[in-house]
Amino acid sequence: MKKTFVLMILIAMGCAQVEQPIAKPTQTTPVKEAVIDSLKHPWSIAFISEEEVLVSEKDGDLLRVNLESKKKTIIKGFPRDLTDSIRVVYRGDNSGTFEVRLHPEFQNNRFIYVSYAAKKVGEGKTTKVIRARLEKDSLRDIRTILEAGPYTRGYYHYGGGMTFGPDKKLYITIGERLFREIDEPEMPIAQDLTDKRGKIYRLNPDGSIPDDNPDFGPDAQPGIYAIGIRAAQGIAVDPKSGNVWFSEHGTRQGDEVNLLKAGANYGWPVITTGGYRSRDYVPPTIEGATFTDPKWYWQHTVAPTGLMFYTGDEFPEWKGDLLVPGLSRGSLWRFRIANDTIQSAEELFVNNRVRSRKVVQSPEGKLYMLTDEPNGKIVRIKNKTI
Amino acid sequence: MKKTFVLMILIAMGCAQVEQPIAKPTQTTPVKEAVIDSLKHPWSIAFISEEEVLVSEKDGDLLRVNLESKKKTIIKGFPRDLTDSIRVVYRGDNSGTFEVRLHPEFQNNRFIYVSYAAKKVGEGKTTKVIRARLEKDSLRDIRTILEAGPYTRGYYHYGGGMTFGPDKKLYITIGERLFREIDEPEMPIAQDLTDKRGKIYRLNPDGSIPDDNPDFGPDAQPGIYAIGIRAAQGIAVDPKSGNVWFSEHGTRQGDEVNLLKAGANYGWPVITTGGYRSRDYVPPTIEGATFTDPKWYWQHTVAPTGLMFYTGDEFPEWKGDLLVPGLSRGSLWRFRIANDTIQSAEELFVNNRVRSRKVVQSPEGKLYMLTDEPNGKIVRIKNKTI
Repeated sequence: MKKTFVLMILIAMGCAQVEQPIAKPTQTTPVKEAVIDSLKHPWSIAFISEEEVLVSEKDGDLLRVNLESKKKTIIKGFPRDLTDSIRVVYRGDNSGTFEVRLHPEFQNNRFIYVSYAAKKVGEGKTTKVIRARLEKDSLRDIRTILEAGPYTRGYYHYGGGMTFGPDKKLYITIGERLFREIDEPEMPIAQDLTDKRGKIYRLNPDGSIPDDNPDFGPDAQPGIYAIGIRAAQGIAVDPKSGNVWFSEHGTRQGDEVNLLKAGANYGWPVITTGGYRSRDYVPPTIEGATFTDPKWYWQHTVAPTGLMFYTGDEFPEWKGDLLVPGLSRGSLWRFRIANDTIQSAEELFVNNRVRSRKVVQSPEGKLYMLTDEPNGKIVRIKNKTI
Repeated sequence: MKKTFVLMILIAMGCAQVEQPIAKPTQTTPVKEAVIDSLKHPWSIAFISEEEVLVSEKDGDLLRVNLESKKKTIIKGFPRDLTDSIRVVYRGDNSGTFEVRLHPEFQNNRFIYVSYAAKKVGEGKTTKVIRARLEKDSLRDIRTILEAGPYTRGYYHYGGGMTFGPDKKLYITIGERLFREIDEPEMPIAQDLTDKRGKIYRLNPDGSIPDDNPDFGPDAQPGIYAIGIRAAQGIAVDPKSGNVWFSEHGTRQGDEVNLLKAGANYGWPVITTGGYRSRDYVPPTIEGATFTDPKWYWQHTVAPTGLMFYTGDEFPEWKGDLLVPGLSRGSLWRFRIANDTIQSAEELFVNNRVRSRKVVQSPEGKLYMLTDEPNGKIVRIKNKTI
């Protein structure tokens, strides 16, 4: 009697392996389900609650979206120096609204952080990060946290990835804004400590510089945490180790996953795991530089972007794994991480590809993905077998 | 009281998710453990029992190996026309002993099948398949099942993969034996039905031709089941669907996983997912030919070889998946298969690489791998968390 009672519970719990070996139905089978559509190249998403999210459209607006009622509300008061691809004819232009993140104490202070492409008439564009207070559907008390000048006419490589570390500091990726290596100055942009571009920053939530940042010398731009960055967008914290990981776009291959270390130089354009856009480009030697290798690089183009560490329960097999969406290949990658090393790499959805900008998890651990399309979607990734 | 009792059982079963989310220890964590070493480039392995295996050394002998006592015994009476790399100075020579498989009713008839590189003085080498009766440690009643002439002086692409299908027929892969595409005759070898090379065969266990083989016309070599093969080595049956899958080596990339279909033309050298060794090679057009695409191809070199479908219980998450070892990249690939399509691809052991020729399962479902080294090993793949 008691045994039957136990077994009933076990089966109800999908734990029938007492009676039989685990079979296919208990395996991880991710499926996609569109929850929201008609978004203009959504770039990032931040959960205000389990149902309410802020979504940044690269070529549109900052929105509040309700995943249940499907209601979309445009957040008013966004800085007027925003520029995006809609206002530019050039196809493939990367400008627009990028990352949106909540302050760790958002529920109390209502602070949000947004990175975007800002323009200055007659000068060009650069990556800017603002902090603002979200009041109802408007931005108030807007403060510029980082302005990664100079303003240039380049279309590409703004970076704009942001995450708060376990240390409550704000980490920001800034691209080098260059398309052709042959346009590099004698001291390449990403290696030049006096240039704000091609770096990763670590700032206090109010934009001030932490006292314990690495020391790059008196001439270095304030707030620099790491250098040698080409075009990094995805940045996320491993909750187990507290490590910060980031993705980076290469040129001819050279797409990478990197582990962020204070004071590290990730080598661009002096060394790369890929090639150069200009095949005849010969990088200069940087005296006394030591470079940090990526933890992973692909031998084909993936365009890895908004990554995250999965901690939900719906995919038990993925717990603690690093998930990396790809733009160009349109699949989702799962990396099993052991401390500082990558143990395995799985490409998911290989027969169901779509350009994907971001993978993210709700407060309750539901998994979502943003598709990078004119009719962009918020896609729920479900485990079919649960 | 009852509740506590239930919970105790659940925890004991690793089903503690009722009380807490599933944690790392329940995940799939494959680790390698060398069981046997000092093998000369082991190519294939066949289980006589859970402890006793036959191992073919590419550059050595056919051995009986006891996985418990570690005892190795050379099987006597192997055909004297065997040729392998040891007898050839040229480095990278592919000749030697290849696949060893047991007859489905081996326990009754003691028949085994071995493919190897056979030589004819003054002519060269070709791929040969024999059937023999294993009596104690000797081969008796040796019969040639397939001799894939002509004998040529080429070093490469013998093929030699073998498996029995669910139809009890013997499937054999034969490579086209060519290294440079520019040496192809006007009608390429793998497309020429009158040439035995570059084909996949389907034979009765006694070597005779099944009545229900696909009809390639009166001039076709007997036993041909599919054509357009360059260098296929791994071939295995999906026990769920009965489908036969095989791996194929490309030149510049073009490594593939294919689903075997009766009468199919896999395209080599007319079409390939990779490049050609001779960059200026222009393949001919074959009138009225229709080609079958691979189910998977890599954009980088893997050298996929002795694959298998996993049905064991030690890795519940892998049940029914296709496992493919790689020579050049030295990792192990896991493909989730749904009927005729591949859903995901995982590269395992990315920080623990070793040239691997074969992955295989014991009668009880233990997972083993053969390393392709001068000091070759039989490696047990264990789930650390079980």
